[in-house]
Amino acid sequence: MRPSACFAATAAVVLACRPAATPPPDTSTAARAAIDAANANWPRLTATGHADSIADFYRADAVLLPPNMSPVHGRDSIRAFFAVMNAMAGATLTLRGESVWASGPSAVELGRWTFTWPDSARRPPGVPPVDSGKYLVRWVEENGQWLMAQDIWNSDLALPTTPR
Amino acid sequence: MRPSACFAATAAVVLACRPAATPPPDTSTAARAAIDAANANWPRLTATGHADSIADFYRADAVLLPPNMSPVHGRDSIRAFFAVMNAMAGATLTLRGESVWASGPSAVELGRWTFTWPDSARRPPGVPPVDSGKYLVRWVEENGQWLMAQDIWNSDLALPTTPR
Repeated sequence: MRPSACFAATAAVVLACRPAATPPPDTSTAARAAIDAANANWPRLTATGHADSIADFYRADAVLLPPNMSPVHGRDSIRAFFAVMNAMAGATLTLRGESVWASGPSAVELGRWTFTWPDSARRPPGVPPVDSGKYLVRWVEENGQWLMAQDIWNSDLALPTTPR
Repeated sequence: MRPSACFAATAAVVLACRPAATPPPDTSTAARAAIDAANANWPRLTATGHADSIADFYRADAVLLPPNMSPVHGRDSIRAFFAVMNAMAGATLTLRGESVWASGPSAVELGRWTFTWPDSARRPPGVPPVDSGKYLVRWVEENGQWLMAQDIWNSDLALPTTPR
């Protein structure tokens, strides 16, 4: 091959793979598998009084955005948030990812949650026996592990009509 | 350049720019500007009784995930959702994006919303004069325009303690 032909071939390769022309790698399959695997732990951990362990699925600097309270910053505070549920052993929180959109080391999951109280669990007054709703989570891959960075949810249940 | 040297040089270029080695393009600056510009319309549209126009900031197949009701699917239904606010003219909904993470044609925005009722607005019974909370939105760029694809929020205000 003549040098000029070599230059042309190399230039063509370089132009064909400029970053701007390369879509972000689709990591949906890997992200989906990791997210489903993480979510599968929630029913067992909540039902057995180990809800505090759920904090391990969050980044150290994650932000939890629960309904009707201020944001919860950082894994230690998130652990304390879920630890409150340890005393509700029997009540079970189930997650079901409906859609995952991934791009490189980040992903967004849209899903549904269901919180059920069996008759044997001591359900506080005013808490419905079944509550469910939707959530949106931003996941980030760090050192091969997918962790939650931002997590927000709310309920489908209508509020009571009494003034607040 | 000898053919073997040309091959080696071309192979080195190809290996150096494989998609897996190319990070997704960082579109944060453009996404942030577009998101801030879209959000800046909300106070005016809500205060003047044109909240239904907010639907134009959503994709045709977007999903709205409001607290205490079922998801709202599609721009037409989203328009009907916001149209309810047209009768509350004077009440003002303000958005403030706190963080935007973008990768190619998609972005996630974490922000805060504030809903205020001036004394002149006819505030329904039981509705607090000021409500505020957090939101998480997944944005997608289509034909140069950034639009909301999934939008979820909740309030920081504690619920009444009466049983529901």
